[in-house]
Amino acid sequence: MTDPLTNLINTYHELNAAVVDELDEQPSALEFMRHVAKNRPFIVRWAIREWPACRKWDAAYLRQVMGREEVKVAITPLGNADAVVESKADGTLVFVEPHEIFEPFGQFLDSVQRSLSGTTLTGGHVKYAQTQNDNLRHEYANLSHDVPTDIPFARIALGQKADAINLWIGDDRSTTALHKDNYENIYCQIRGEKDFVLLSPVEMPCVNEQMMARGRYVPVPSAATATSTSDDGYKHDDRGVGELEAQLDTGAERVPVATWDPDEPEKRTTTWSHLAKPLRVTLREGDMLYLPCFWYHKVSQRVGDEGFVCAVNYWYDCSFEGESFASHGFVRDVYLAEQRRPEYPELKVGGETGGG
Amino acid sequence: MTDPLTNLINTYHELNAAVVDELDEQPSALEFMRHVAKNRPFIVRWAIREWPACRKWDAAYLRQVMGREEVKVAITPLGNADAVVESKADGTLVFVEPHEIFEPFGQFLDSVQRSLSGTTLTGGHVKYAQTQNDNLRHEYANLSHDVPTDIPFARIALGQKADAINLWIGDDRSTTALHKDNYENIYCQIRGEKDFVLLSPVEMPCVNEQMMARGRYVPVPSAATATSTSDDGYKHDDRGVGELEAQLDTGAERVPVATWDPDEPEKRTTTWSHLAKPLRVTLREGDMLYLPCFWYHKVSQRVGDEGFVCAVNYWYDCSFEGESFASHGFVRDVYLAEQRRPEYPELKVGGETGGG
Repeated sequence: MTDPLTNLINTYHELNAAVVDELDEQPSALEFMRHVAKNRPFIVRWAIREWPACRKWDAAYLRQVMGREEVKVAITPLGNADAVVESKADGTLVFVEPHEIFEPFGQFLDSVQRSLSGTTLTGGHVKYAQTQNDNLRHEYANLSHDVPTDIPFARIALGQKADAINLWIGDDRSTTALHKDNYENIYCQIRGEKDFVLLSPVEMPCVNEQMMARGRYVPVPSAATATSTSDDGYKHDDRGVGELEAQLDTGAERVPVATWDPDEPEKRTTTWSHLAKPLRVTLREGDMLYLPCFWYHKVSQRVGDEGFVCAVNYWYDCSFEGESFASHGFVRDVYLAEQRRPEYPELKVGGETGGG
Repeated sequence: MTDPLTNLINTYHELNAAVVDELDEQPSALEFMRHVAKNRPFIVRWAIREWPACRKWDAAYLRQVMGREEVKVAITPLGNADAVVESKADGTLVFVEPHEIFEPFGQFLDSVQRSLSGTTLTGGHVKYAQTQNDNLRHEYANLSHDVPTDIPFARIALGQKADAINLWIGDDRSTTALHKDNYENIYCQIRGEKDFVLLSPVEMPCVNEQMMARGRYVPVPSAATATSTSDDGYKHDDRGVGELEAQLDTGAERVPVATWDPDEPEKRTTTWSHLAKPLRVTLREGDMLYLPCFWYHKVSQRVGDEGFVCAVNYWYDCSFEGESFASHGFVRDVYLAEQRRPEYPELKVGGETGGG
């Protein structure tokens, strides 16, 4: 008999398409609710082309509207915010959050754009505005009038307003490692492109979640005041950020983190990783993606004409009613039980194995 | 650690109400879709009070419209159509379908109504019009204009017309044993009352499904031509049906049948039966029930003023896309694997149990 987890993943794939649905236009609330009911993603090409943001958000406009505002910026050595880092000391895996600073938006955008022109310092840090705390309606309130206050079909279908609207600005180097959120997510691409790799919640046994200590990138004290000159002679002090080092937060509770990477499918595998069928979709300027609750997603990106990537996403609370959430916990429980189960020989029916 | 199936059932109950939602009026297509997404039942009191059927369907009218039409009637000794019967020979359980005859509608309705007045023959068979083959638009086409051709909110939400509309007419004695259907079901009560006992699909481990041989009630040949006179002197020959006996259909494939009865919760239990939280709801004249796909339901009934029960239900094809169907199969697989698993002692971590 096929093991239940294998059967689950295979059956899911037999019953569901191996591609992301592509809609011709934004769905009605009812059409959207059909996708929510199936918990299946879709993309709408050119859905947001009429948004003022799509016309207006070039670098000059952003600098004009936001230039002097202090914004929170995530800084990492390699663009790996909220990512798994191998500890130098003993090789254990740590879930590392970025170093965070506040700096004037104009200065932040300079750093991002400089990465395109190749003028970044060798070994220069990667900056990403990605606070995911409803930043568009707070830090970036000056820009909030250029996008809708809500996505009508989602608001009507889900019977609630957006819980958070997040602005994302970064460069090519930032990636978001495979993870999932407890939100219905409407993701809208304004500038540049994003490559999404998606895995359904039933593929949890494939992603090799491990309980992991938490850490954070912090500047190495001795270098904290270093300044340097980049190749083009531009004075660049990153506001005092020097070398970054991942430091363990020994007080923090451990968190489950996906360690399998669908782009390196032979590494850190589980028994079930080879059964995964990641959905891949590229979001281009003006496109909209519905990323359902609890779906694993990995995101990488390419800058647009002006050397930055910009997106806005709307988060709606997801429902824990019905079977879906309980079923995901069940998959996890069975997976964990399988991990713990000793490999006894299969019991033969009819006493063939003999008694003790 | 709690076993995964226990955890699943308990988590489901923690996240979902222990009662059937009661709506004030028929939902919009979108509101309905929210219930479909959660796969949760609801009831709407008085939803169909304006249907012509609710006003018109008394015994006189039904006889007038349908009297001479031949209709298919299920006949059982005890009102147990499609039910589990213990074999007299060896005690094994058999899933027994009713004996079926065709008779003029008027004669059928006589038999049903007679059961109320206590004039049924002692040991008289129970008749039930319950063919579930879209009978309202075929056998009972003369009555079909008294109910809508579709349930608008369901047709719009599901994007399809009703696959079948079924008429049910019977007396107090007919019950439908716990089972599930692969249909979204809108159940509408015209006369009398029905008591539904509902179990969600995640409660599958509670219902003690067993693979069962199939059988059918057949008249015992020697009595096939018997006629008899009932207490009121009414000549009553059941069109030649005498004593009924359950006969095994040895050629038929075995079918999975729920054997646990939520009304006799201590009998035929599984390890998980005590975790079930059956939802109970009584459908009265004019009420509508949404019974979602894959929900287990047991139904019993009480006749109305004129001594019969009458209901109409609409079946819509259910979706096998998304996670729901695959997840139900997963619950079944894990349940079956648990049934087969030998009870080895738990492995102690750290080699505490010692080597062989």
